[in-house]
Amino acid sequence: MGDTRVLIAGTETISRRVIESAPRLGLIARVGVGLDNVDLQAARDNGVQVTFTPDAPAPAVADLTIGLILALLRQTHTANDLLHGGEWHRLMGRRIGDTTVGVIGVGRIGSRVIELLNSLGVHHILANDHEPSLTSVSKRNVEWVEKAELISNSDVLTVHVPLNKATRNMIGKSELQAMKPDAVLINTARGGIVNESDLAEVLTAGHLSGAAIDVFEQEPYSGPLIGIRRCLLTCHMGSMSRDCRSQMEIEATEEAIRYLQSQYVKAPVPEMEYENQLQA
Amino acid sequence: MGDTRVLIAGTETISRRVIESAPRLGLIARVGVGLDNVDLQAARDNGVQVTFTPDAPAPAVADLTIGLILALLRQTHTANDLLHGGEWHRLMGRRIGDTTVGVIGVGRIGSRVIELLNSLGVHHILANDHEPSLTSVSKRNVEWVEKAELISNSDVLTVHVPLNKATRNMIGKSELQAMKPDAVLINTARGGIVNESDLAEVLTAGHLSGAAIDVFEQEPYSGPLIGIRRCLLTCHMGSMSRDCRSQMEIEATEEAIRYLQSQYVKAPVPEMEYENQLQA
Repeated sequence: MGDTRVLIAGTETISRRVIESAPRLGLIARVGVGLDNVDLQAARDNGVQVTFTPDAPAPAVADLTIGLILALLRQTHTANDLLHGGEWHRLMGRRIGDTTVGVIGVGRIGSRVIELLNSLGVHHILANDHEPSLTSVSKRNVEWVEKAELISNSDVLTVHVPLNKATRNMIGKSELQAMKPDAVLINTARGGIVNESDLAEVLTAGHLSGAAIDVFEQEPYSGPLIGIRRCLLTCHMGSMSRDCRSQMEIEATEEAIRYLQSQYVKAPVPEMEYENQLQA
Repeated sequence: MGDTRVLIAGTETISRRVIESAPRLGLIARVGVGLDNVDLQAARDNGVQVTFTPDAPAPAVADLTIGLILALLRQTHTANDLLHGGEWHRLMGRRIGDTTVGVIGVGRIGSRVIELLNSLGVHHILANDHEPSLTSVSKRNVEWVEKAELISNSDVLTVHVPLNKATRNMIGKSELQAMKPDAVLINTARGGIVNESDLAEVLTAGHLSGAAIDVFEQEPYSGPLIGIRRCLLTCHMGSMSRDCRSQMEIEATEEAIRYLQSQYVKAPVPEMEYENQLQA
């Protein structure tokens, strides 16, 4: 790390120790939008700029989310698992248009999920965020409700918030138990927003008809959800589409080039992100 | 069967022998749209009317198809399988909007699939059917092409035709080999349209990045696709959504009531279906 001036960073932990072990480091260019893995204050204390690529992953994460919702509602992951094991079961499901979908977090990704739900004919969408705002969201079919009401009235619950102090364990045991018995839960945002051990406990007890978890508190994941068949597990693949991945990597590399050519970077992390992390 | 006057029928084989063993039978009310399992000529020879519920399953089948496409493109079924086995692999995929989707068969279901693809931002859709017709399809982004061109140019190939003489083995070894090496194939129509053993052979040889098969020549299925992990297998679940299933069952039951009350039935199978089957 001694001579490193720029770090193009994935989701690995970039701690104060990492940052301070690179005395010439001047830029951390995150490939992606989440900043929970970067110690922003340590970067600032050491005069290291941080950039991110906030827009590029949204289409791929939203697509993945819709695909996971459709899989859970029709139990295709369970049928696939059973039939590859030699068992034929025609499992009954629900059409997405016939459900109430609750979206917590209506930023770049959540608002795009809402647009896709709309276009798939979902007539009843509930939304919530830390402040009431539907500015970036088509208001058609979207009802703004309190979080508790959203959780207890949704057939499908999907979270699209960053991980910070306010959102850690946002969906824990009491929230899970407040969900409808046959509801499904999707987390393509960040591990830790949904409490994994609470989810495993609640699923094991027979509550919820399914869950899809793409992100985990500790990755690679090796916890108790692995033993629960109706929990659809993917490997932090939200941004893993060819086009979005290329776009993210190009944007992060362009920031590196700008920095090395002593130009202003294009997408510095906004002040709000530093404040959110300080509170964490 | 001796006294049976009405048969409300699923996908089980209703052969001449079955029909002739019920001398009082006057109506076969199919729950669903496919008629490949009913010997229509034998029904006619014995004065038995046949009805079906052609519209009810379309929304559920189209939804399932879209869900399977999204799963294949992002390899969520494979990631789920691997992670439940303790292996963490961040698999790269494609966004649906970044692909060319080919739809063979633009009847009730195929045209609905096209509408959904459109609304999910697929800019390049290829379509084909036994006769050029896009009357029921939004023409936006849809290009009518010959079947061979459609097969070789699609990243995603989905079939929505009935099973008859013209469509049996429509997608066999040469068609599969003509597909792009990383394309995906979906069959939610009927078993036998895609030749299963050819598909197993081609997948085993490493061609195609995935396939999703919901319908089989012999159901319950127990053939070689079971051993192929990247083949997503479901159990004839196209119409298995609560709302569509209810609708289909209500419509078939209403036909039974009409018949038993000596009223005209509402959705008799059209003459074309008899002709198609005679050619088979």
